[in-house]
Amino acid sequence: MGLPTSKGRNLLFYHYQLDLRKRLFLDEFGLFLGRRRKRFVVRRKGKVAEEVPADDVEAIVLMSKGVAVSEDAVRLAIDRRVQIVHAYHSGWPYAFTIPTFLSGSVETRRQQFLAYSDERGVELAKAFVIGKLTNQSNLLKLLSKSRQRTQPRLANELYGHAVGVDHVADRLGEIRGFEVDAVRLDIMNLEAGAARFYWSGIARVLPSELGFRGRDPGGTDPFNVLLNYGYGILYGEVWKAVYYAGLDPFAGFLHADRPGKPSLVLDLIEEFRQQVVDRSIVSLIARRRLGDEGIFEEGLPEGEKPILSKAVRHLVAEAIVKRLGDEVAFEGKKLALSSIILRQARKVARYLRGTIRAYTPFVQRW
Amino acid sequence: MGLPTSKGRNLLFYHYQLDLRKRLFLDEFGLFLGRRRKRFVVRRKGKVAEEVPADDVEAIVLMSKGVAVSEDAVRLAIDRRVQIVHAYHSGWPYAFTIPTFLSGSVETRRQQFLAYSDERGVELAKAFVIGKLTNQSNLLKLLSKSRQRTQPRLANELYGHAVGVDHVADRLGEIRGFEVDAVRLDIMNLEAGAARFYWSGIARVLPSELGFRGRDPGGTDPFNVLLNYGYGILYGEVWKAVYYAGLDPFAGFLHADRPGKPSLVLDLIEEFRQQVVDRSIVSLIARRRLGDEGIFEEGLPEGEKPILSKAVRHLVAEAIVKRLGDEVAFEGKKLALSSIILRQARKVARYLRGTIRAYTPFVQRW
Repeated sequence: MGLPTSKGRNLLFYHYQLDLRKRLFLDEFGLFLGRRRKRFVVRRKGKVAEEVPADDVEAIVLMSKGVAVSEDAVRLAIDRRVQIVHAYHSGWPYAFTIPTFLSGSVETRRQQFLAYSDERGVELAKAFVIGKLTNQSNLLKLLSKSRQRTQPRLANELYGHAVGVDHVADRLGEIRGFEVDAVRLDIMNLEAGAARFYWSGIARVLPSELGFRGRDPGGTDPFNVLLNYGYGILYGEVWKAVYYAGLDPFAGFLHADRPGKPSLVLDLIEEFRQQVVDRSIVSLIARRRLGDEGIFEEGLPEGEKPILSKAVRHLVAEAIVKRLGDEVAFEGKKLALSSIILRQARKVARYLRGTIRAYTPFVQRW
Repeated sequence: MGLPTSKGRNLLFYHYQLDLRKRLFLDEFGLFLGRRRKRFVVRRKGKVAEEVPADDVEAIVLMSKGVAVSEDAVRLAIDRRVQIVHAYHSGWPYAFTIPTFLSGSVETRRQQFLAYSDERGVELAKAFVIGKLTNQSNLLKLLSKSRQRTQPRLANELYGHAVGVDHVADRLGEIRGFEVDAVRLDIMNLEAGAARFYWSGIARVLPSELGFRGRDPGGTDPFNVLLNYGYGILYGEVWKAVYYAGLDPFAGFLHADRPGKPSLVLDLIEEFRQQVVDRSIVSLIARRRLGDEGIFEEGLPEGEKPILSKAVRHLVAEAIVKRLGDEVAFEGKKLALSSIILRQARKVARYLRGTIRAYTPFVQRW
């Protein structure tokens, strides 16, 4: 199994081109984000390491404790609608810096709350999960297809797991209800059933040394920690999409039973996890760019939760951001995945306001 | 007329004790906010200028372009629920750094949106404005009382203005409606009528050199600019109260016709403007701590909007924050004004959820 590339090890900070707009990840002690006119300036020990025009930047992700940001840069980011994300080393955002104005109309939020008590909430919750399950199945089928010649037995197995997920998705489609509270448990039970097919399928394509025994957000095995990191980046993207569509991040449908959690973000992220994150990380492992060694930082105190090594963090962020830039066919158009995320959030808003009759989840063909 | 104190001029940054919790205002080029364990550390040119335990800090207000903040400090602030405000030099917040979790329940927001279409919205809109008008009247009566011996004619005049406001407030109480959209115009017309009585009364106690001709948020005369600065600080306090009560800042009742504006913050601030800001600034002028000279920064380019001088900004912030710490009798208790702001936001939430039958605005006796 290959170690992370040495290239990754030497990065001080990094950005990735995407849709002509970049994400600036500041993930190393001692970096300083400043401003020079309409440009962001990254400095290290007082020396300019990079200058980027603000209009070329999509988001600034601050992931390290040793990073500092000037208020000039914050002002520029807010003026230019550049998202500022404050994230843990695990990749999970713990804060956002948001403007005091709101995009979108309050009417969207009003309808969002009304929809909680009518059939729209049911339809959205179902659509998010049907999207998730269809993408789970499609990813398994893709993994099956690419192994048909080399590992025909494994390919058949994976296809079988996909069919298992498909059956669950069919049953989801039959769920009816007048409000989401009445059907949440049914939806979540089916979701859990599909998850068993899906993750046991994914486990089959991973090296057994990784010790992956199923998805567990609190798990300390490499694959679960890698997923968490990837989902953290995706979560920032989905949050931004939800926020700029004028939706309330905290008023979801499926995950609404979690007080204080941004439940609509957790709802909408479901249909993107597989194609954006799972696929990227499985691919990194399959291409042996990630192995079972060198994944975690070494020398952490006993009992501490494992942290991905810097090289691996860079590798995963690079892969996810590159993937967000991939153009994918959806609803008759070819669009970057990051644009599809923004569109899907706006589609939720339009569905809630009654501009469109149905919400169709994002699905990528295999 | 006295100039601002030289004491104010020499402050690098400043904090004010309040309820045992401080506000850190970072308002000078070159300041750096860092962290040492559970303490905020303010540095100037690398030297520690002050250390404050995080639990002693209520809010961090970043008001200058030359200020920088470490991510360590941001993390500490979010962990300890210290508010981070990003404000223009005019005092107006343009961004907040907010945690990705929400306090309060989504049910509060749901009811907030439902209330827009029922009588609760009418009652809240009326209550906010009745609070505002009663405080306007009470402040005029206070100013009248304190001038009764020295300037009896002015005292009578001020009392007359107060009675004018009272009459408008009485008519407000008579407004009935099934939803706020149906009564907004009536309420706002009465509010405007009261404003004429109020501000022409306030103008009578100001030195004519200040050239105050009535409240105008875009006005460039000293008193209007001073008010803007004070309202900016108050606005941050009210935003925090609204946010932590679990309310949606953008879904107000009275100011709901302003898309993208945090209309509930603009609603709730109404009952606090007079006693927190107007009174403090009138008092600074009456005590000759603010004159008509030295108020604005000098040497600004032709045509630029005037900016308060640093000494004056410090003086006003000090006065407002001191005022927020003043204990005031309200509903049978003596509480700091800053605590009353938090309580009033929670009271709005409780009224919306149906825990209490009526929302009574904050009013300070004279």
